[in-house]
Amino acid sequence: MTGLGPNERLIGKPGSRAMLDTPALLIDREALERNIVTMAMHARAAGVNLRPHAKTHKSVRVAEMQVGAGALGICCATLGEAEVMVGAGVPGVHITSPQVTEPKIARLVALHARPHDGLSVVVDHPDNLAALARAARHAGKPLEVLVDFSAGHGRTGCADEAALAALVRAAVAADGIVFRGIQSYSGNLQHIAARAERRAKALAQLERLRGMVARLRDASIEVPIVTGAGTGTFDLDPEARVFTELQVGSYVFMDVDYLRALKDGRNAPPFDTALFVATAVVSGNAPGYVTTDAGLKCFATDGPTPEIASGAPPGSRYEFFGDEHGKLTLPPGATKLPLGTIVECVTPHCDPTANLHDFYHVVSGDTLVDIWPIDARGKR
Amino acid sequence: MTGLGPNERLIGKPGSRAMLDTPALLIDREALERNIVTMAMHARAAGVNLRPHAKTHKSVRVAEMQVGAGALGICCATLGEAEVMVGAGVPGVHITSPQVTEPKIARLVALHARPHDGLSVVVDHPDNLAALARAARHAGKPLEVLVDFSAGHGRTGCADEAALAALVRAAVAADGIVFRGIQSYSGNLQHIAARAERRAKALAQLERLRGMVARLRDASIEVPIVTGAGTGTFDLDPEARVFTELQVGSYVFMDVDYLRALKDGRNAPPFDTALFVATAVVSGNAPGYVTTDAGLKCFATDGPTPEIASGAPPGSRYEFFGDEHGKLTLPPGATKLPLGTIVECVTPHCDPTANLHDFYHVVSGDTLVDIWPIDARGKR
Repeated sequence: MTGLGPNERLIGKPGSRAMLDTPALLIDREALERNIVTMAMHARAAGVNLRPHAKTHKSVRVAEMQVGAGALGICCATLGEAEVMVGAGVPGVHITSPQVTEPKIARLVALHARPHDGLSVVVDHPDNLAALARAARHAGKPLEVLVDFSAGHGRTGCADEAALAALVRAAVAADGIVFRGIQSYSGNLQHIAARAERRAKALAQLERLRGMVARLRDASIEVPIVTGAGTGTFDLDPEARVFTELQVGSYVFMDVDYLRALKDGRNAPPFDTALFVATAVVSGNAPGYVTTDAGLKCFATDGPTPEIASGAPPGSRYEFFGDEHGKLTLPPGATKLPLGTIVECVTPHCDPTANLHDFYHVVSGDTLVDIWPIDARGKR
Repeated sequence: MTGLGPNERLIGKPGSRAMLDTPALLIDREALERNIVTMAMHARAAGVNLRPHAKTHKSVRVAEMQVGAGALGICCATLGEAEVMVGAGVPGVHITSPQVTEPKIARLVALHARPHDGLSVVVDHPDNLAALARAARHAGKPLEVLVDFSAGHGRTGCADEAALAALVRAAVAADGIVFRGIQSYSGNLQHIAARAERRAKALAQLERLRGMVARLRDASIEVPIVTGAGTGTFDLDPEARVFTELQVGSYVFMDVDYLRALKDGRNAPPFDTALFVATAVVSGNAPGYVTTDAGLKCFATDGPTPEIASGAPPGSRYEFFGDEHGKLTLPPGATKLPLGTIVECVTPHCDPTANLHDFYHVVSGDTLVDIWPIDARGKR
């Protein structure tokens, strides 16, 4: 046993998927591999690089698979994620959120001082740029930065073209800083359920971004990288022709939300569901439903409810039933599921669901084939 | 450094509360101590024992403080929590959710085989009772069980008095089982915001429970333990006279939800807010609000939104702004908070919020005085 939880003893045992100690977060290995290859092929065909977002999976193993399939590197949302990925030797780590506090800047510079194969961070304010430049000069190693532009979401990023251009010029001029490009992530668009609406809004935003980047280049500023996009807008770039790289995240796993959004107008979503929670029936004394062992400490609660993938009759519904339990309502007339029955659910919102678990239980068909720690879970 | 995260270097440093690497989960040490003492005094005055619920804090240190103040032991919601608590030598561990699957029963029996100072588990179905009895006989060490009765919530527990009485009789008769009593937790009532309504409904339920327990005792069945209640109904027992012990949990920390529920009809809630998330301003390029570094991977999202405790002008509001960010809307005319400003928030729902963090940063006044690992976080 090497600390991989109560299911470690089942690795490699035929039929072990149905014997798992629950609740357990599962990765379908083949679906994960297909998703990684599908996105890599899409990017190659579109002539755009990939730097997938590791905030979704927080796993060194998944990051290595993405890089193995041709990704330039990976994105991280937190410095703690970047510390884990750089520590594991993952190349091309880009931090997509501004690192502005004193402790974070000190950690960033300490991370940058370690041997690594690429590290960059966004900046969206001149004060932060000045603080980063000062710290980098003090450490004697210039820091690569991308300037963040708010794509309508208003979460982070420069608010308008004048602020963007001024900050880019300041970054180009700053001693201790290497300006690498522009980030513009349209988080507000990713989950729009109707594909036509999502597409129209994203293309309008990208047109604006393209104009701004063109004007910077016209002013003889080199902009090697333009990064952004997400799983909801992954296929717009051949038209938009603005990004040099995509920071797609959720495509590796998919979830209830993205399955709905990406299915719209297509026969099937272009990516497969690769992430599931296996939960067991633990009580069943009331008519019409049973109680399972996965509640709101196992699933993200910011999105839809989990959907049942297998183990319960069609028409069954899953709801949260407190911290540790789920309520599985059976369709009228269905036989009550016996105690111990394992049901697998599609996760509502994949990123914060993975963040609740310590391990991925990697399954292939009906067998548990590996367990991967969720290395950067909880790392800020 | 002993693996307590990026703030370990600040322990004991005056003024360190304002220097914390964010986001950070804080415990106000004095408020925690007061809450533990207040509940202990209440229980003593009411002539009832305390076995507080450790699912709230998942911390050996907090459990030890509760036991030190006179608690008989602690409750756990998951077997994984119980393994951590028993492993740390915490006495009187009671598992409040049925453990029904084969892997869970195997782990339970293995835990019971270790030296410990009290371990019990609930059961709500004859099949589960039979499986537990069989495993306990095989291990050669009888298992203490409490029979769970559904107090209207319908999550777990026997559904009616006939089922309860039959299961109690089966437990009394079962070889390998020691019947210890009844559990009845009214989870559905704890969060009813109006105190009068919560009180009336709880007293009606407890009256029903009291009748059932009395009829068991009239039939010469010893019922040493009757356990239940929560922070929302902690003060009803002197009237209800049914519980021998209370499994209150959230009172140690309090949260937005319980502060509202328990304040109703009183001058102030009887417990103090002891749990906060410290978050820093990381972006502020749009008018009227700033972006902070604590989003839905830092706060439970199943309840209300976080409330601001300090660091921002009165009238400011907090909303989630994605996985890693919060949106702090300032009141009209307020000066924008500078980058790096630390704001402390009351957590929306304390249990699942604590479950998102690895450490409690224990503060006393303006100083970080200790860091406690959240030992059982993620343990199932």
